[in-house]
Amino acid sequence: MTVPPAEDSYRAGAVDLLGILAYGTLTAFERLAEDARMAPTLLDKIHVATMASAQIHYFAPLRDRLEEVFEVSVLAAMRPFHAPFNTFHEYTRPKDWYEGLLKAYVGDGIAADFYREVAAFVDEDTRTLVFEVLADRGHDEFVVSRVRAGIEADPKLAGRLALWGRRLVGEALSQAQRVAADRDALTSLLTGTSDRPGMDLPAISRMFSRLVANHTERMAKLGLQA
Amino acid sequence: MTVPPAEDSYRAGAVDLLGILAYGTLTAFERLAEDARMAPTLLDKIHVATMASAQIHYFAPLRDRLEEVFEVSVLAAMRPFHAPFNTFHEYTRPKDWYEGLLKAYVGDGIAADFYREVAAFVDEDTRTLVFEVLADRGHDEFVVSRVRAGIEADPKLAGRLALWGRRLVGEALSQAQRVAADRDALTSLLTGTSDRPGMDLPAISRMFSRLVANHTERMAKLGLQA
Repeated sequence: MTVPPAEDSYRAGAVDLLGILAYGTLTAFERLAEDARMAPTLLDKIHVATMASAQIHYFAPLRDRLEEVFEVSVLAAMRPFHAPFNTFHEYTRPKDWYEGLLKAYVGDGIAADFYREVAAFVDEDTRTLVFEVLADRGHDEFVVSRVRAGIEADPKLAGRLALWGRRLVGEALSQAQRVAADRDALTSLLTGTSDRPGMDLPAISRMFSRLVANHTERMAKLGLQA
Repeated sequence: MTVPPAEDSYRAGAVDLLGILAYGTLTAFERLAEDARMAPTLLDKIHVATMASAQIHYFAPLRDRLEEVFEVSVLAAMRPFHAPFNTFHEYTRPKDWYEGLLKAYVGDGIAADFYREVAAFVDEDTRTLVFEVLADRGHDEFVVSRVRAGIEADPKLAGRLALWGRRLVGEALSQAQRVAADRDALTSLLTGTSDRPGMDLPAISRMFSRLVANHTERMAKLGLQA
């Protein structure tokens, strides 16, 4: 096991990253369990319930790494992220099955891309865990097939979902800005410190371009304009 | 892997047992996910969400055994049990966190005891799977500690939960009777056929006594009268 750097700002940033992921698995579980309730068929329900359970499955390793390596309680590490996550979910309650599918696909897609960017700057074991937590387990493919079939059956759905996708991105960015403003340690993982390399402003701008390009590609897979 | 007996009534009974368990894991997932929403603390929420995900985890091996060994689709095997399960859940919606905990403990407890009795009469591999699906994973202990603490904080809760426990048993028996009346194959696993040993009437009566005794013991662990 690699030993993470002892520098305080590094440790605080890594703890924030693990904390946001731990709270993320818990809220993803709740949201997918809610989607499972709205599933139109039993097979869809089983698929989404299985995805929900895959999320909570990663809570324990995140908790263990926080507690064993960083000596921080998972409850404390998650606390700064309650408000932004809860606000995001309050402002983006899916009205139906399709809105729920799109929310999981678009919201988790952007969030996962961003966490992977940040993970480039943490120690190797933490990074391996982050990538494992964020790996797609067939949910993207499931969402694409279901949403495309839904639009085929009811072409009006496309316009509504394109609007919904833009709204999701807007609310996600608004909460991400809040986190960036409040959590210097997380931000400084990306930007670096005098002792530790990070991204300069052009690099950060290129990172945002990558996030936008990936989002546009995800929407295109659904046949929707980002 | 042992090959299950080819006799038709045996196979139909084993398929019923696996089908009822598969639908049971799905409804348990949904019910526990709902309980997680009502959890008073984040640690309680995480515990119950983890229990929910442990349930759905067993869906896949049940489906695989049904499809690979018995050549029956899991959707078909579950279908006879939609109505009794859904009716039971409709008639026993928990009004709060404690009613949800008791429902999981009492309802799943009796059901698991009964499925284990039936599993005594199926082939060894099926029985091993059934016992694995039904193994307690610390949820009983969790419920006992939470309910006892709740009653200590609010002694009036005891009376309400004792009533609720009796109501749960009544509704569960009523649906079990419906299943027994509709599913000859499942019943005949217990009672046997001319070629296959089973329980005679005194043995069935002793089985009911065991179910009642276990239930009474579970309630006593909560400090409640069954």
